[in-house]
Amino acid sequence: MSGKGENFEDQAFVTLVTNDRYAYGALVVGQSLRDVGTTRQLAILITPQVTQPMRRQLSMLYDYIQEVNPLDSQDDAHLALLTRPDLGITFTKLYSWRLTQYSKCVFLDADTLVLQNVDDLFDREELSAAPDVGWPDCFNSGVFVFKPSNETYRGLLQCAVTQGSFDGGDQGLLNTFFSDWATADINKHLPFIYNMTSAISYSYLPAFVRFGNEVRIVHFIGRTKPWMYRYNTQTGTISRPSDVDVTHDSIYVKMWWDVFMSKVKPRIEQEQGTPLQDSPSITPPSIAPCHHGGGGETMSHDSSDSNHCRHGHSYQGYSTVPEHYQIGGGGVQHRPPPSVPQERTSVPTVVRFLS
Amino acid sequence: MSGKGENFEDQAFVTLVTNDRYAYGALVVGQSLRDVGTTRQLAILITPQVTQPMRRQLSMLYDYIQEVNPLDSQDDAHLALLTRPDLGITFTKLYSWRLTQYSKCVFLDADTLVLQNVDDLFDREELSAAPDVGWPDCFNSGVFVFKPSNETYRGLLQCAVTQGSFDGGDQGLLNTFFSDWATADINKHLPFIYNMTSAISYSYLPAFVRFGNEVRIVHFIGRTKPWMYRYNTQTGTISRPSDVDVTHDSIYVKMWWDVFMSKVKPRIEQEQGTPLQDSPSITPPSIAPCHHGGGGETMSHDSSDSNHCRHGHSYQGYSTVPEHYQIGGGGVQHRPPPSVPQERTSVPTVVRFLS
Repeated sequence: MSGKGENFEDQAFVTLVTNDRYAYGALVVGQSLRDVGTTRQLAILITPQVTQPMRRQLSMLYDYIQEVNPLDSQDDAHLALLTRPDLGITFTKLYSWRLTQYSKCVFLDADTLVLQNVDDLFDREELSAAPDVGWPDCFNSGVFVFKPSNETYRGLLQCAVTQGSFDGGDQGLLNTFFSDWATADINKHLPFIYNMTSAISYSYLPAFVRFGNEVRIVHFIGRTKPWMYRYNTQTGTISRPSDVDVTHDSIYVKMWWDVFMSKVKPRIEQEQGTPLQDSPSITPPSIAPCHHGGGGETMSHDSSDSNHCRHGHSYQGYSTVPEHYQIGGGGVQHRPPPSVPQERTSVPTVVRFLS
Repeated sequence: MSGKGENFEDQAFVTLVTNDRYAYGALVVGQSLRDVGTTRQLAILITPQVTQPMRRQLSMLYDYIQEVNPLDSQDDAHLALLTRPDLGITFTKLYSWRLTQYSKCVFLDADTLVLQNVDDLFDREELSAAPDVGWPDCFNSGVFVFKPSNETYRGLLQCAVTQGSFDGGDQGLLNTFFSDWATADINKHLPFIYNMTSAISYSYLPAFVRFGNEVRIVHFIGRTKPWMYRYNTQTGTISRPSDVDVTHDSIYVKMWWDVFMSKVKPRIEQEQGTPLQDSPSITPPSIAPCHHGGGGETMSHDSSDSNHCRHGHSYQGYSTVPEHYQIGGGGVQHRPPPSVPQERTSVPTVVRFLS
């Protein structure tokens, strides 16, 4: 569709995080997009909960950062949210359609990992997505092609207020709004290899053996995310947390950690000026003072799952019943964040905070 | 597509069983098709293992019975089977394409159950099927629309010999042969409600709540089949066998048993002249002397699953490691089969045995 060397500044990959824990996912998926040589922009939506040190990290990778807060917004979302407070985080994701500086976007949940270049997704039209393994006449909203438009945004808000979301999250709402996905146009069915659930080898191993080497994007669905695993820096092995709900294929969790260790961790350490605790094993620690007390050694588990432990939201970690686990090894050294965010030198970054 | 009162004798639902245990499934799915008032013919392929008493039962429900035996066949299948003995049962299923007396057919695995009329499936073209939840770019071969054709049959045999089956069964082979299913024509994607796996509420409950009442065909995938459950005739409740691999929604297992108890069991008893053991609970007993020894009180579990406990073949029960369980209550009374098969009076039956 497009010649080599073209400028694609009006097309972007978009993700969303609402706290620092999922921001580790955003750092890894953003890095994985850089590693496969994407020619498109990287944009991220964040909520006020994301700390300043984490925003600095994100700004070193993403071209565009926008803070959104539906509760304080001046548009219809605020009013809609008063009617449907249950859809709070979903309204944040809908902001993606307001990124009208882009002509076309690909949304990637923060718990995805890109293994091969997927810029060809921009040849697809709105709304293109891959089937959800839970009910394959629904698309999975972890990876989808969309066209920013204020009109569509308002339509989505209206749909949220009048029809709600059958699963309490964005996937139910988006499937209601784009309800002809299953029947209208085969070209809007992304191949499953663009949004393969990371536990798929347990459900149909022969198909995974046959097609698995073509996988382009892995999606770590469920409550248990790669950043909850423990990584042993001496052996390069990973180990699961004790209370997993989904058993991800370890090869993909290892790939996630390989990106984290090789590119993300060094950048955090350079920024902090101190090494991360890495012996004998680490999980991504907070890079800002922890909100949970206890000196930063604990992180809240992400258990926002409204969909029977399968379809946890992919951008936040709010929990009605918080669970905690111990970060391996000793504590993490923090230093007070500098007052001026550092900018990445290789890729220009626009940081724009809206409320 | 078709006016009321038309004759559809050239269109048929087709199923396949290779032993008496799966034949109980065929009796129930055939009955369920009658119960929803299908206007199409019912045809069944059986292998030599199916006993004479069971053939009589099948002949009371099915319009057309054909015995097939690839090992003794005089066509290319025999030669092909010598090359790929691993695909023995798969070759039997391919015989469906040789039913050229029909212009169009819908294949239903014997472990399906029809809840609403699905005659509209005949408006679809070959090869129409619903996505497989294990890898949704593959179709599930438990329900599919096809057009009998000797040319297609030979093509399938050729494909089996040259490319084989990536999952060792018919689904892998058919997905290889009809490889453009995922990308070519949205009309060949049957809605998931035409082949809904019976354990789906455990994987994406909100979608099941939203769409579950529209379900037309339930598919009991996996090794554990409804006829392995126990039914308590006093309470109307069902209980699972001890070693289930898939937890089916009990509401659908109950529906299966409701069909069995209300229509299939009375017909067996009428034919046998004695009541089936039904207190305090029963499972479908053999209606012919048991092949496993032990006086007919044991039945072999069906554990032919080549696909990581998810995609058990839906028409046979051969097991490399046979497991047994006890039929509830006392033994089942048998009487020697009469020498002349009885025919159903309401629907003409053609029984044709080929080798």
